[in-house]
Amino acid sequence: MLTCLGYYSPFANQEDITVKKVGIVGATGYTGVELLRLLAMHDGVEVTVVTSRANAGERVDAMFPNLRGFVDIEFTAPDEKSLFVCDLVFFATPNGIAMKYAPALLEQGVKVIDLAADYRIKDQAVWEQWYGMDHASPDLLSQAIYGLPEIHREKIKEAQLVANPGCYPTAVTLALLPLLESGILKDADIIADCKSGASGAGRGANVGTLLAEAGDNFKAYAATGHRHLPEISQTIKRILGEEADFTFIPHLLPIIRGIHATVYSSLDQQYDLYSLYAKRYENEPFVDVLPEGSHPETRSVKSSNMCRISPLRVGDKQRVVVLSVIDNLVKGAAGQAIQNMNLMLGFEETKALNAPALLP
Amino acid sequence: MLTCLGYYSPFANQEDITVKKVGIVGATGYTGVELLRLLAMHDGVEVTVVTSRANAGERVDAMFPNLRGFVDIEFTAPDEKSLFVCDLVFFATPNGIAMKYAPALLEQGVKVIDLAADYRIKDQAVWEQWYGMDHASPDLLSQAIYGLPEIHREKIKEAQLVANPGCYPTAVTLALLPLLESGILKDADIIADCKSGASGAGRGANVGTLLAEAGDNFKAYAATGHRHLPEISQTIKRILGEEADFTFIPHLLPIIRGIHATVYSSLDQQYDLYSLYAKRYENEPFVDVLPEGSHPETRSVKSSNMCRISPLRVGDKQRVVVLSVIDNLVKGAAGQAIQNMNLMLGFEETKALNAPALLP
Amino acid sequence: MLTCLGYYSPFANQEDITVKKVGIVGATGYTGVELLRLLAMHDGVEVTVVTSRANAGERVDAMFPNLRGFVDIEFTAPDEKSLFVCDLVFFATPNGIAMKYAPALLEQGVKVIDLAADYRIKDQAVWEQWYGMDHASPDLLSQAIYGLPEIHREKIKEAQLVANPGCYPTAVTLALLPLLESGILKDADIIADCKSGASGAGRGANVGTLLAEAGDNFKAYAATGHRHLPEISQTIKRILGEEADFTFIPHLLPIIRGIHATVYSSLDQQYDLYSLYAKRYENEPFVDVLPEGSHPETRSVKSSNMCRISPLRVGDKQRVVVLSVIDNLVKGAAGQAIQNMNLMLGFEETKALNAPALLP
Amino acid sequence: MLTCLGYYSPFANQEDITVKKVGIVGATGYTGVELLRLLAMHDGVEVTVVTSRANAGERVDAMFPNLRGFVDIEFTAPDEKSLFVCDLVFFATPNGIAMKYAPALLEQGVKVIDLAADYRIKDQAVWEQWYGMDHASPDLLSQAIYGLPEIHREKIKEAQLVANPGCYPTAVTLALLPLLESGILKDADIIADCKSGASGAGRGANVGTLLAEAGDNFKAYAATGHRHLPEISQTIKRILGEEADFTFIPHLLPIIRGIHATVYSSLDQQYDLYSLYAKRYENEPFVDVLPEGSHPETRSVKSSNMCRISPLRVGDKQRVVVLSVIDNLVKGAAGQAIQNMNLMLGFEETKALNAPALLP
Repeated sequence: MLTCLGYYSPFANQEDITVKKVGIVGATGYTGVELLRLLAMHDGVEVTVVTSRANAGERVDAMFPNLRGFVDIEFTAPDEKSLFVCDLVFFATPNGIAMKYAPALLEQGVKVIDLAADYRIKDQAVWEQWYGMDHASPDLLSQAIYGLPEIHREKIKEAQLVANPGCYPTAVTLALLPLLESGILKDADIIADCKSGASGAGRGANVGTLLAEAGDNFKAYAATGHRHLPEISQTIKRILGEEADFTFIPHLLPIIRGIHATVYSSLDQQYDLYSLYAKRYENEPFVDVLPEGSHPETRSVKSSNMCRISPLRVGDKQRVVVLSVIDNLVKGAAGQAIQNMNLMLGFEETKALNAPALLP
Repeated sequence: MLTCLGYYSPFANQEDITVKKVGIVGATGYTGVELLRLLAMHDGVEVTVVTSRANAGERVDAMFPNLRGFVDIEFTAPDEKSLFVCDLVFFATPNGIAMKYAPALLEQGVKVIDLAADYRIKDQAVWEQWYGMDHASPDLLSQAIYGLPEIHREKIKEAQLVANPGCYPTAVTLALLPLLESGILKDADIIADCKSGASGAGRGANVGTLLAEAGDNFKAYAATGHRHLPEISQTIKRILGEEADFTFIPHLLPIIRGIHATVYSSLDQQYDLYSLYAKRYENEPFVDVLPEGSHPETRSVKSSNMCRISPLRVGDKQRVVVLSVIDNLVKGAAGQAIQNMNLMLGFEETKALNAPALLP
Repeated sequence: MLTCLGYYSPFANQEDITVKKVGIVGATGYTGVELLRLLAMHDGVEVTVVTSRANAGERVDAMFPNLRGFVDIEFTAPDEKSLFVCDLVFFATPNGIAMKYAPALLEQGVKVIDLAADYRIKDQAVWEQWYGMDHASPDLLSQAIYGLPEIHREKIKEAQLVANPGCYPTAVTLALLPLLESGILKDADIIADCKSGASGAGRGANVGTLLAEAGDNFKAYAATGHRHLPEISQTIKRILGEEADFTFIPHLLPIIRGIHATVYSSLDQQYDLYSLYAKRYENEPFVDVLPEGSHPETRSVKSSNMCRISPLRVGDKQRVVVLSVIDNLVKGAAGQAIQNMNLMLGFEETKALNAPALLP
Repeated sequence: MLTCLGYYSPFANQEDITVKKVGIVGATGYTGVELLRLLAMHDGVEVTVVTSRANAGERVDAMFPNLRGFVDIEFTAPDEKSLFVCDLVFFATPNGIAMKYAPALLEQGVKVIDLAADYRIKDQAVWEQWYGMDHASPDLLSQAIYGLPEIHREKIKEAQLVANPGCYPTAVTLALLPLLESGILKDADIIADCKSGASGAGRGANVGTLLAEAGDNFKAYAATGHRHLPEISQTIKRILGEEADFTFIPHLLPIIRGIHATVYSSLDQQYDLYSLYAKRYENEPFVDVLPEGSHPETRSVKSSNMCRISPLRVGDKQRVVVLSVIDNLVKGAAGQAIQNMNLMLGFEETKALNAPALLP
């Protein structure tokens, strides 16, 4: 638990609980503050180190006043050795940072979860092409586990290094998984028309995501190639065993949190689509297949780690449309990272992640 | 022109201009006030009658203060005879109203533009199925012209009765037209993933479009069947000469104005997609094919009658994605109605419609 | 606790905890769903009855999908007797309902918290004038406790009937309390310029709070007399011992949650304003006096029961400006009601209310 | 007129109209693009030069696609001599630029309107204190006319150099003018609680005005001293002949355009407040005193040069509240600058400024 001012902890007097130490590198962005918000409710870990090169010495709750009374520490300059005391370190940094620090941390026995993209793509050449830089620790690519618990739960429990999935890939992959795994989708085209809130673009100063630019507006972007395309394609290929014809168009929504994926494919009429989804996810704590015919809303998962899904038959032919919503900062980033942490450190998988979404 | 308080009119002293009289039935909704806003800039017509059953006797500018100084009349109760003095009447009413009034008006030589759906579908049975009522003047269906000037300009000039297209159909049809007309799209699937601002739902009291419900939120709706589906399908079939496999999924955006259509199809690599669009629309005053590779934004057409389009090749196979934006209240409703009125009454087609969009 | 599907409860195996039964009358509005969201985290109470005349028989989580997995019951028709089994009943109803049901419930020993205004004003004539109806149980006015724990904590602990304060009165009263109580404000004018998110207008169908009306807009309303004016004036008078010259102007913000009060008064230069506030609130769990010179943001309390306050000296004369923010649905309604419930039922005051605000 | 692609101009064939040449320095910000949008409707001027150091060589309509078809030129590097051909130059630059260029332009007979603050404050020492730099052309301060036509119309007609007022000062001064000029406000306190949309912060990359920071949020800022305070105080003092006790608190609204000023003062009951305002503004083309008891909305002036005002008596004592709304980019910046240009160049004052506001 964090050093809490007045925060009620049911375990406050239970001395026998071993609290794990975690660190966050680069905690001044939206995934960083979201990790801190969620970890404030987690009584099995203590956030020991929160680094930020630019804001070292500043109190964390001076930058994020929602954390007043919950986080009583300052940002420190990033320093590998200060992180060695941690049981696990989150990288909430831009792409290209974790790949430099991870080897030394792993060598010290510190587990690592990268919320950026450094270890998501298994093929080094593909990664370097899409991310425009040389990979600093390519030998770790093969051992990194892609942190989507709905696919790799058991591997994550044993992992030292987890590549936390991208936000769009989480929403799209969960929308597709039952179709892909059941093997009934061969030769089909797949289109993912995705819409994301502006927090997905991060907390950096940027004209394009100013309120006066991105507010009261809607547009597609990166239509001819977004970095999450090869990440999703990799998963599709891994499950299908072959390339699919996959199209991915992201759009920018004038909201802060939320991703809505509208995924199109086709399927013979004989298959019972709804049962396929209901059955696949019946034991998943964070995938909710809505009642048949539903239209999931982004607000129904705001602040929550839930992914809500509705698979639909549309028209009288083979068209399948799957609607999927997540909070891009929670199931699409910090919440999923904590879900992975819970698995890696032996906590209940849902710990600190089980509160209703904020509606309205 | 409206009775204008201080409005500058370049024709004020030109006595030889014959001003036409127009009426608006049902002007308390968003398409009604938008007609009034745009017609206030039109010096060739005078809005003589503005009806509203519920608000008869109330000044129009008391309900819509943006019109203070531009509209100096009151709402009157709907009354066929008061409309007989008009040269043209707009129906900015719910579905099912215009079909009752139009016959008498047409008989009196009054031209009619219905901004609702009463005359959009040629097949009476299809219309009655989707709109859930009997059609009151089915004999007019064959003579009504579907008011998309980019297809039917010459017919509109001669028309007595124009069915103003739906907002989604306008955005989607303009996105598809060059592909459909060129005959190169046979057998292809077409998917239209569409997103609309909340003004598309109208100005009626409704829980679903409250700010606290639809704001800070995004969702699909009517995924298994929206009334604009048969309208678009009818146009596709008319041009292709056969049914296409067409899927249409509308979504609700947390903005007031704007539609963004993301239209997916496929096409052999040999065709030069961009030239096809640039050439098809080079003389259209209200369709703007953006520079190659662009992503149109809804705000770039806010308050304007323009449709901006970007046709894209995506991936290395046959995938085509066409992005199209309109202001649903202008090119998707009132602006297009005035464009049709200009054609029907012999004005310059762009009259009162040629101002830059409001950005930011 | 609610019947929870998968919700982690630290007390799940502790049989000796006596769980209290609570009911919610009128739970289809925003204060109702917010009570349910917050009570889902409370392991000392079980929500036994949730009534709604219009939605009886419908699952609660069908209307509010954020509650799926947390609330496993249906709305029932309001029925006094079904509420008699409760230890405490919340009225999240329109004004004028609680005053009819409360007498019978109190007689049965059921405690009552009214989130509407029925018992907020002590003077029956004043209440009837502002609320435009006869009071159905005026004899209860004197025994009802005004549920602002920062003033009446000890009385609330003993109360059978609590009038939960209005949203604006909570923000304004907490901004004024140190000035009023210290007796240094005599003869001063007080102005409260207040701004509220649209959820404050409730979940009823209403043209004025449609996204297309209240979104992208800002205005004052009820400037010449809002029902929260006599409520605030009553508190000022009770503390000062005399009427103050108090002006209250509410405005409608295009956001869902949040109230910002900007309160103006004047004070001799000699008083140390900041210390006055810091000291008054140092032990209050839900009032946070920000570092000197701060500007509280509504988002810093979104979803939280916290009120953040910044008292400022402005200019070189006597001007005092106090900035105060709350989430109108939490500290301004449901959260404060649960804080009161905790006091009335003997729980820790902060129970189920101690999570960080959602930012961004 | 601009080089227009298809824009309908009633004067296109009237050779005898002398078109004036204007330049815009720094046209990549919001006031710059708004000048271009409005001047596109003005057939008496041609925008000859549009400068931007950073974007020289780029087409203006590539940055602002709403101007496609209306503005057919490129940004050029700022160069005094290229501006010498202009009849009038607008500075839509940050503070501190116009004061360097204006002397040379004025010497060449080029008229200058500065939309920034360089010439707004008459007292050089006060200006330098609030703006934190030395003034580069202090000798021009006395000849610069403060460009609020409602006060200085006749002087503006003769002016060579106009200091366009700030956005907040425009809204507040118009709200106060009848009270100040009538001499009935002596010794009164004045409080201006003001709220502005995010476009007021400009188009620079800035964390604080990101959609994910300023959206869904509300806060005060600069409460202890905003640069518009001395500007408003200067006007108050000029009219009253003495300092007033004036308090100004600005707040940031989560909308793009719009300022709402809520101005508090007090006045003896004997004065007829509404008549005072109605009479003072009866001939002003851009000040609209709403019907008694109205609450002006920011959306009622969006995109328009109108200021709508409602003066109210509140309570039973002397309290006066004046509500005032403008579009900060139009009457608060570019529109007022064009109103001033019209006066300076001998055009009709309302030319190109007389379109209804965009609602909804």
